[in-house]
Amino acid sequence: MRVIVDAFGGDHAPLEILKGCEMAARELEVEITLTGNEDIIEKVAEDNQISLEKMEIVHAGDVMTMEDDPTEIRTRKDSSMAVGLNLLAEGRGDAFVSAGNTGAILTGATLFVKRIKGVARAAIGTVMPAMPSGCYMLMDAGANAECRSEMLAQFAAMGSLYMEKIHHVRNPRVGLVNIGSEPTKGTQLQLEAYQLLSGMPLNFIGNVEGRDIPGGCCDVAVCDGFVGNVLLKVTEGVAKSFAEELKRMFLKSAKTKVGYLMIKGGVDELRRKMDYTEYGGAPLMGISKPVIKAHGSSNAKAIKNAIRQAKLYSETGVIDDIRAALEAEKARQKAAQAEGEESHA
Amino acid sequence: MRVIVDAFGGDHAPLEILKGCEMAARELEVEITLTGNEDIIEKVAEDNQISLEKMEIVHAGDVMTMEDDPTEIRTRKDSSMAVGLNLLAEGRGDAFVSAGNTGAILTGATLFVKRIKGVARAAIGTVMPAMPSGCYMLMDAGANAECRSEMLAQFAAMGSLYMEKIHHVRNPRVGLVNIGSEPTKGTQLQLEAYQLLSGMPLNFIGNVEGRDIPGGCCDVAVCDGFVGNVLLKVTEGVAKSFAEELKRMFLKSAKTKVGYLMIKGGVDELRRKMDYTEYGGAPLMGISKPVIKAHGSSNAKAIKNAIRQAKLYSETGVIDDIRAALEAEKARQKAAQAEGEESHA
Repeated sequence: MRVIVDAFGGDHAPLEILKGCEMAARELEVEITLTGNEDIIEKVAEDNQISLEKMEIVHAGDVMTMEDDPTEIRTRKDSSMAVGLNLLAEGRGDAFVSAGNTGAILTGATLFVKRIKGVARAAIGTVMPAMPSGCYMLMDAGANAECRSEMLAQFAAMGSLYMEKIHHVRNPRVGLVNIGSEPTKGTQLQLEAYQLLSGMPLNFIGNVEGRDIPGGCCDVAVCDGFVGNVLLKVTEGVAKSFAEELKRMFLKSAKTKVGYLMIKGGVDELRRKMDYTEYGGAPLMGISKPVIKAHGSSNAKAIKNAIRQAKLYSETGVIDDIRAALEAEKARQKAAQAEGEESHA
Repeated sequence: MRVIVDAFGGDHAPLEILKGCEMAARELEVEITLTGNEDIIEKVAEDNQISLEKMEIVHAGDVMTMEDDPTEIRTRKDSSMAVGLNLLAEGRGDAFVSAGNTGAILTGATLFVKRIKGVARAAIGTVMPAMPSGCYMLMDAGANAECRSEMLAQFAAMGSLYMEKIHHVRNPRVGLVNIGSEPTKGTQLQLEAYQLLSGMPLNFIGNVEGRDIPGGCCDVAVCDGFVGNVLLKVTEGVAKSFAEELKRMFLKSAKTKVGYLMIKGGVDELRRKMDYTEYGGAPLMGISKPVIKAHGSSNAKAIKNAIRQAKLYSETGVIDDIRAALEAEKARQKAAQAEGEESHA
């Protein structure tokens, strides 16, 4: 198992990336290929006493920054991201991880690695924490600001397989993010998606609302990338505000200060629990090989977790399952259509 | 100052509504008109020793329930909601409060009370808590699942005036809810709205993201009603999950239990602080007279707060200011257009 890692993606690259790779090489059964400027990688590793054992470096002179226009990846073939994606496409690794520019990874993965046949659009599937336990997959968490209902239906099918295979959820509950529980709620997009999802071989539980999603009312929350991105970031924002406010309040008086110190570990644990970066990174669902987008602010541990997830994603063969499910769904639709025509004849 | 209250709107009607009205009549300088079944109102008041002093009852035999199709309000003129809205339209009160079916209040207010001239669509302006202090207005929080950019521009103008007049925010910061901070982010709707907002006499601070909104990065967060409704409900859901999880975690061991008991008051205070129902209710912005939608699960205190808000909304004359601002904006656009034509000539 070889995971290709973009050494220059993310806010803390390359230092935290290299540290994370060292942890992964030691703790997980993986070999790592780093892409990026070889001299800098070797210098940073030496300066920080990071062992590059079991790691191969493939030189890439350029870097796609967070501010770069994602479409530039088409021409910036020497960027650490493009080089990594092309190695994956050529079969010189089993999975690719980057904490860099999300749009660029998405564009690059679609362009170089290609989508699974029949997938209309790749989506970012972010695994979010659910309270009191477990997690759910948000599909799409931001790749496609505008979607058609057929895309949402595919997101649902892919997310369901992911949760089943990777998180061992039996018969994952699929919910459509909406502004009310009744099937008549929402815009044309939700109305159509509701109909499509109802007819698919999925455990579709209907519309789900924002107030129930963080409590884990479903295992896959389906929406367009605009709504998904807002949902993800608001979850992050409220958890952060809540934790900070808690601290502020309790450090006010001696009595509450003592109380806070007694529970501080718990608050930190809770905040960690609500931190989706703990889950390692978001798979680009619908791409024909495993591509994992780690959070831009990833530290070493987050990178290690993303590599673990990349490994799992590859080993469990989810992508083959998705391919098979899409073909079966296509056959099902064809049969239903033929039956419809026959009964009309 | 007379506030008309729908005695049969909301999950806890009529008991909590009557209790809330009693509190308001005692604590605030308001007279109250209750709409609904007179016999039931009098019986419930008597059974629960609620004084109806300073209150007038206008009988209404029917009730719009939470499950009713909102458009039915057109024909169900004898419902407590329709009767109340018509009293407001006829000038037999200064403001209207209901905790009932949101869609029905919106449809009824638009139909009976009418929009301010020039307003394309009325919106639900929910005042949300911001951490560590203050609040922001979410516009639209759920009235219009689909919007045009001109509608968002009007929401921004109305929300800004509301925050200035009612919450005494000087030069309110208006943010456009988006999936990135750059002006090029989002769908066609956000791109167009960004342009419109940039040209308006508002303190437009650009795009705002979900992770910064709960921290109070802006005073008015502008979005369509679908995104707004998801944002509102996710905020509620995460705060609820966080508070519950905190409790669960700390009641696990003797040590953390003691710590939790010492800070319990603080956690409750924090949860209250994050509870938008504390802010009293959501004004229907763009309606020509004050209509306040209280939360469906309102208790007596929430109803009292909604009545206080209705009173403030009426007294401060925000609606006249909105009317004037819309006329000025129209004149500004006309002048800009004329200038454009002249320079082309």
